[in-house]
Amino acid sequence: MNILITGGAGFLGSRLARELLQRGRLAGRPIDSLMLADLFAPGDAALTRDPRVRSLAGDLMDSLPTLFAQRWDAVFHLASAVSAECEADFDLGLRANLDTTRALLDACRRQTADGHAPVLFFFSSSVAVYGSDPALPLPAVVGDDTLPTPQSSYGIHKFVCEQLVADYTRKGHIDGRAARLMTVSVRPGRPNGAASGFLSGMLREPLAGLPSNCPVPLDTPVALSSPATTVAGILAVAEASREAFGGRTAINLPALSLRVRDMLDALVDFAGPEAAALVGHEPDAATARIVAGWPARFDSPRARALGLQADPDFHAVLRQYAQDHPDAVKPPAARPRPTPAR
Amino acid sequence: MNILITGGAGFLGSRLARELLQRGRLAGRPIDSLMLADLFAPGDAALTRDPRVRSLAGDLMDSLPTLFAQRWDAVFHLASAVSAECEADFDLGLRANLDTTRALLDACRRQTADGHAPVLFFFSSSVAVYGSDPALPLPAVVGDDTLPTPQSSYGIHKFVCEQLVADYTRKGHIDGRAARLMTVSVRPGRPNGAASGFLSGMLREPLAGLPSNCPVPLDTPVALSSPATTVAGILAVAEASREAFGGRTAINLPALSLRVRDMLDALVDFAGPEAAALVGHEPDAATARIVAGWPARFDSPRARALGLQADPDFHAVLRQYAQDHPDAVKPPAARPRPTPAR
Repeated sequence: MNILITGGAGFLGSRLARELLQRGRLAGRPIDSLMLADLFAPGDAALTRDPRVRSLAGDLMDSLPTLFAQRWDAVFHLASAVSAECEADFDLGLRANLDTTRALLDACRRQTADGHAPVLFFFSSSVAVYGSDPALPLPAVVGDDTLPTPQSSYGIHKFVCEQLVADYTRKGHIDGRAARLMTVSVRPGRPNGAASGFLSGMLREPLAGLPSNCPVPLDTPVALSSPATTVAGILAVAEASREAFGGRTAINLPALSLRVRDMLDALVDFAGPEAAALVGHEPDAATARIVAGWPARFDSPRARALGLQADPDFHAVLRQYAQDHPDAVKPPAARPRPTPAR
Repeated sequence: MNILITGGAGFLGSRLARELLQRGRLAGRPIDSLMLADLFAPGDAALTRDPRVRSLAGDLMDSLPTLFAQRWDAVFHLASAVSAECEADFDLGLRANLDTTRALLDACRRQTADGHAPVLFFFSSSVAVYGSDPALPLPAVVGDDTLPTPQSSYGIHKFVCEQLVADYTRKGHIDGRAARLMTVSVRPGRPNGAASGFLSGMLREPLAGLPSNCPVPLDTPVALSSPATTVAGILAVAEASREAFGGRTAINLPALSLRVRDMLDALVDFAGPEAAALVGHEPDAATARIVAGWPARFDSPRARALGLQADPDFHAVLRQYAQDHPDAVKPPAARPRPTPAR
């Protein structure tokens, strides 16, 4: 099987690649090659040393002719301009998210027209499709049939691409599936400008012995997914039979619903009060307003039917982070303490 | 006010144009000019004689540079490749419905960028956005917050364009509103190949003394809107304040819910049993299956809040048709009989 991952040098794309290489198979077939296409070359040396891995750096739209000089059996389309980029540059967002996805779908369609089996196409959508339209506020619990009313260009693009993936699938041009990823925490690496950044940074920096800030009230409800749970969800959706996936509408991946306070409590449990003491509480009204607009509770029977489960609690999420990134965790935090009575 | 109607030579576009010219104003401002852009020139001589009216025939995408050599205050975007065309030619559908709408939105955006007030932009969406995805069957009554899961390329295109109109509006590039039109009955003119064609032809042909056919079971539920009610809905949405319209999500225009049997009963009431006797009952399984997938009952509080009401009953719809098209109704039918006891 020859697999293309767009956004393959990014955090989730690389993690998905590593998981695929470790499994060695996708949908029951051995993996022959894995192409990581991204704006930049993958930085993970362990990944690029694998003889099955190739990479191509550059704008995805421009790369498509090169990429589709060969045939793909599966495409994981993770590449996307992010929310802040789309808000800052309307045309860039349309090109990177809509036009590029359309061109990628058409490249896949040409493969099918040439007589090959429709490519297995995973589209990475986002919980950002949900926003509160004044006329149609979100329900307290978002279900599989909740109407998305995106309130950002990024959310609009994701929702539009879901529709295109569904129609290309209906027509038999691809075997497409779209899943909405939750906010991923704990992301490794450095702080970024995303409104959701603190949901990783608030934990990641103290675990490394660095100060961080929580810009929202402690009782703010949020919905999260660890990197491992997110990648497991992507693969389960990609490998599901069409019958098990059910229809062609995007599904919501599972979410751990909790309050920001619960995240900090888990940090105390996991790394001690000295780590939690590194978290400042400088409020940021703009961030608080954005985060308050995100849905925080989900009922996702379609994900459950695929056997998908949310992370059990945030302590498990922190444990996963420490195991995956031992170098990013300072010694005291690297030794999980016995859980104190709450 | 300078107004552009795409699809302006079509049945609904012409009717909208006549209504606008008769009112003389839109959103409180006098109408200076009305451009009817369509694949073909308008056939309605009374319309084209009006000195305020101009027309441009040709592919809309190709016409945009010519059309936007001037500035528009309002655009009614009604032009669309229809369902059967989109199913038959995937690329044509994408170009006519997605790419052209995007180009039109960008032309409007450039006006705003040049310092003009954002154009009032009405987007004609369709009840065809609703389809039954196997994983998420439609509820018995479709509400304003029901998730559309389109099952045709046409429905996908309409739903996608709704999203684009919402985002261009959110960013201030246009003052956009999208409304989903119901199946319009009774359409004048000749039979067409649409699956919904019989919902007009079944009445229109017998009223003209011609045979017709009802290809579906008599208890099939349907949701309809007369041409006058549809145009009234378009204008109410266009003229609503943003507050009254509420948010940026497309609204469902009102629908008269009834069974096919009720339509034929109204035909007997209105034109006598001799007219109804012209309706054959040759079943067509394909049409019956398609029509059975359409939602037939709606609860539309947003439309009600705009003061919009469905046609009161189908007898009123037939009366409207006979008044609007006296030449298309044979003498006995042109004299409404007293309503017999039902």
